[in-house]
Amino acid sequence: MKPFDVIGFDADDTLWHSEDSFHHGEQRFVELVSPFVAEGVDVKAALTAVERKNLHTFGYGVKAFGLSAVEAAVSISDGRVPTAVIGQLVEMVRAQLTEPVRLLAHVPEVLAAVGRHYRLVLITKGDLIHQTFKVETSGLEHHFEHVEILLEKHPEAYQRVLQRVGVAPERFCMVGNSVRSDVLPVMALGGTAVHVPYPLLWELEHVDHDEHFAELASLADLPAWLAAG
Amino acid sequence: MKPFDVIGFDADDTLWHSEDSFHHGEQRFVELVSPFVAEGVDVKAALTAVERKNLHTFGYGVKAFGLSAVEAAVSISDGRVPTAVIGQLVEMVRAQLTEPVRLLAHVPEVLAAVGRHYRLVLITKGDLIHQTFKVETSGLEHHFEHVEILLEKHPEAYQRVLQRVGVAPERFCMVGNSVRSDVLPVMALGGTAVHVPYPLLWELEHVDHDEHFAELASLADLPAWLAAG
Repeated sequence: MKPFDVIGFDADDTLWHSEDSFHHGEQRFVELVSPFVAEGVDVKAALTAVERKNLHTFGYGVKAFGLSAVEAAVSISDGRVPTAVIGQLVEMVRAQLTEPVRLLAHVPEVLAAVGRHYRLVLITKGDLIHQTFKVETSGLEHHFEHVEILLEKHPEAYQRVLQRVGVAPERFCMVGNSVRSDVLPVMALGGTAVHVPYPLLWELEHVDHDEHFAELASLADLPAWLAAG
Repeated sequence: MKPFDVIGFDADDTLWHSEDSFHHGEQRFVELVSPFVAEGVDVKAALTAVERKNLHTFGYGVKAFGLSAVEAAVSISDGRVPTAVIGQLVEMVRAQLTEPVRLLAHVPEVLAAVGRHYRLVLITKGDLIHQTFKVETSGLEHHFEHVEILLEKHPEAYQRVLQRVGVAPERFCMVGNSVRSDVLPVMALGGTAVHVPYPLLWELEHVDHDEHFAELASLADLPAWLAAG
């Protein structure tokens, strides 16, 4: 008997690149803003601190990042940052929101292979318009019977999705790159989770834990892992 | 027999005030930015034009408004706007995102009355974190068996919600303040819609049409309208 009925996939940094764009945006912020900041200020750390402060109010995603970047540029430069730089920060947001989806290696084949044996659902979080844009332009939407864009991936949110999809936690397996968002909350419900790390992890996604779960080096290993049951 | 099984409610400007905050934000933008703009520039019209240009990329909601306001402030002042004003624009966004929900008159009583006879769903659009914050802090969530936050309220989006809720369009009635978002797309599916105007309407929500539908002066009139069947 198959161990699961439904496989859930995270999207950002599991199906397509995402964090590298944020990483690039942070580096660009440091380049643009540093010339106007007093010596000894850690520009990157200050930006992350502003993002952390705003997370509860602004939420996840590129627009939240952009507003935090504008706020941080003004505050850490003590107002000395030129408005031309502010304009460039907004342009950076626009570029990231319209950037074409860049799929990770093996993703279409893996979804096709796993989709032959399981019902697939996509469970992501973040900005509604950006996530929708990425799902619709990814060429992957047809693999999923259900797409869910959550505000936050806590156990209650997963529970609502599983009820909606009609699967018990014991028959559900989640695949994603974030231990905090994709693995621990699903295990807390009694489900199974597989961790497929991405080379970059946003500081605010970091979590300390001592749970045990499967970790795969690549999504390409997922069909064999599922077949080994 | 009751004419409907499920009543859908819009949220912003139907259950609680919203557009007045955006209106206030626009006025504040004009006050803050006008001193740095060449004579003869229509500051308010320029802001709306930037919002319109960005709608497809930034989507709806306060964060999108804030990024457009920052962009417009820099561009229409030709960079002369001080960074202190940029900081105030970001503060305006934060204030709007954390402002307590202000319910419209009669809303709790109307939901309680209608909820005794019908299943209620909340169907809103906009920013995931802001809409969730408003729903959760409104004290109204328990009236609804389902809450849906959509990216855009087009007929296909409503169709998915109705399938999810398990109701045929002919047995569904939507109540809201926007003809464009709450009335026409539901009628296009064969459903019923009731228009309850709010004194303010965002320019980008305006639509020309020649459809006929019920219009109520206040949500307080809804129970009687439903009873008259």
